[in-house]
Amino acid sequence: MSPGGTSAGTDRLPAQERVRIVEVGPRDGLQNEPTVIDSAVKLELVRRLVGAGLRQIEVTAFVSPRWVPQMADHQTVMAQVMSAAWPGGFSALTPNLQGYQAARAAGAQEVAVFAAASEDFSRRNINCSIEESLQRFRPVLQAAHEDGVAVRAYVSCVLGCPYAGAVAPAAVADLAERLRDMGCYEISLGDTIGVGTPDKTRRLLEQVLRQLPADCLAGHFHDTYGQALVNVYAALDCGLRTFDAAVAGLGGCPYAAGASGNLATEDLVYMLQGMGLQTGVDLDRLVDAGAYICGQLGRRSPSRVARALGARPAKAEIANQQKQGGTG
Amino acid sequence: MSPGGTSAGTDRLPAQERVRIVEVGPRDGLQNEPTVIDSAVKLELVRRLVGAGLRQIEVTAFVSPRWVPQMADHQTVMAQVMSAAWPGGFSALTPNLQGYQAARAAGAQEVAVFAAASEDFSRRNINCSIEESLQRFRPVLQAAHEDGVAVRAYVSCVLGCPYAGAVAPAAVADLAERLRDMGCYEISLGDTIGVGTPDKTRRLLEQVLRQLPADCLAGHFHDTYGQALVNVYAALDCGLRTFDAAVAGLGGCPYAAGASGNLATEDLVYMLQGMGLQTGVDLDRLVDAGAYICGQLGRRSPSRVARALGARPAKAEIANQQKQGGTG
Repeated sequence: MSPGGTSAGTDRLPAQERVRIVEVGPRDGLQNEPTVIDSAVKLELVRRLVGAGLRQIEVTAFVSPRWVPQMADHQTVMAQVMSAAWPGGFSALTPNLQGYQAARAAGAQEVAVFAAASEDFSRRNINCSIEESLQRFRPVLQAAHEDGVAVRAYVSCVLGCPYAGAVAPAAVADLAERLRDMGCYEISLGDTIGVGTPDKTRRLLEQVLRQLPADCLAGHFHDTYGQALVNVYAALDCGLRTFDAAVAGLGGCPYAAGASGNLATEDLVYMLQGMGLQTGVDLDRLVDAGAYICGQLGRRSPSRVARALGARPAKAEIANQQKQGGTG
Repeated sequence: MSPGGTSAGTDRLPAQERVRIVEVGPRDGLQNEPTVIDSAVKLELVRRLVGAGLRQIEVTAFVSPRWVPQMADHQTVMAQVMSAAWPGGFSALTPNLQGYQAARAAGAQEVAVFAAASEDFSRRNINCSIEESLQRFRPVLQAAHEDGVAVRAYVSCVLGCPYAGAVAPAAVADLAERLRDMGCYEISLGDTIGVGTPDKTRRLLEQVLRQLPADCLAGHFHDTYGQALVNVYAALDCGLRTFDAAVAGLGGCPYAAGASGNLATEDLVYMLQGMGLQTGVDLDRLVDAGAYICGQLGRRSPSRVARALGARPAKAEIANQQKQGGTG
């Protein structure tokens, strides 16, 4: 690597190229917040996210309310989102056939399944081996195929496991390939505990891209150690064009030690827009959506972009004030 | 850029390569904190930073206490740091000959000057044109040359100006070259308002590196919009191996809207260590130093690494507790 830049480099990425953002705040985010949020607030959050231009939003999880009380209202949320007929796609996490059927009954047109690249994490987190988890997805994928429902897959712990430590890129690649072969249209590779650095992200993706094309992969980075955005940049450089993020970095209280929040969608959009890439997102309206849910959670946003732009009122608020004739 | 990675890429950076960190927390950090910190606390902070392995620390600024009350104790701090005979280099900001002479009287062996790449910022921030600022540095550089004192230069607003907006890479390159020609051994390129994204960082550095070698340049990124670390990564890829950072992201209250803190040294070290690069820094002891100054400022650290590692007591604290026979 010579000074002056002989690298092909991410700046060679054509400006105006489109990057797809999958907003996971209402599900992966709120599922991991200590506060249980009312369905009406979730609906309003999704409405604002759609208003900001997000076109793929995971809205809930059809999991047991005993284990995940934050998602106990999945039926209500899914049904109301679908009946709102907003533009875009709205998915739900469905870990098994029962969850899938409930999601379908509520109108879901897309679902997601969740596997782990680490045997230890799989056993402790979803209480079965990786192989058993794949067998559990088979009837979901079969039913979804018959119903014409798209299935996305999450693979967690791709850059490290809280129990086993390092995870082999080859194990991630093999699991991603099996999920693809089973019919999942996209595999979201998750650095669940946020320990990845850009060199490790690159090495992982180089391995996975030997077995799968970039256009069926997504990057899902957590910001536990502040590395999420630089990992996105490394992944962009490897050819990925789809990234998961959560408005306001939902999913880990920023004031709790050891918090493990998602990459804030605001920070991701700021970088992508700065690079001249197209996301379809209005950053001011996105910041407004983040401020709304932070208000409901009673805390400040961990998103640095939200804090910086929060110094001036969002355009949406100004428009609202003008409509109401108020002076704010 | 093809999927699979044809880029030369930063992962080709040889592991074990050394990256130099210039710790600017005690100066650039504390200068911009609302709380005025006691000299004894500053000394203890520097002691802890040295203990963590940092070997270049900017400790104070010889500026008017009328304008910068946070640095009013520059004489005391500089003299006590120098008399402590800690390993490493300790510098002070000296905007003019008077400041330089005061710094020398206190024992300074290295000083720094501060210019702006934006004419508007120069006039509003240091009250003179860029050309006038260079003329003001001449006697400092002359005296430093005679005294055998090293001079570092900061160039601010390299990726954007709060008044003028965009700043031309060519203007930054020309100013950096002039400062180098005047005798500054290193030019620290500062994204003062944190608006840079990695593509802009790369374009800037490609321009500057046409005029100056990488080994006389440093990257100084602020984390206002969460982009500091990804900008470091882009700069590493361009060949830079020296970066400024401030422990605990000192220099911008993380809870104030529009805050403009420095990149947290903890987050920088985490990434570099993860990439297999050598910094000489003990991350646990660095987190401990950050916790100390945050305690004095009465706030939590904005560093995500500090928060994540804060879940377990730092090794230094454990050792201390063991020495004291306490159970913590």
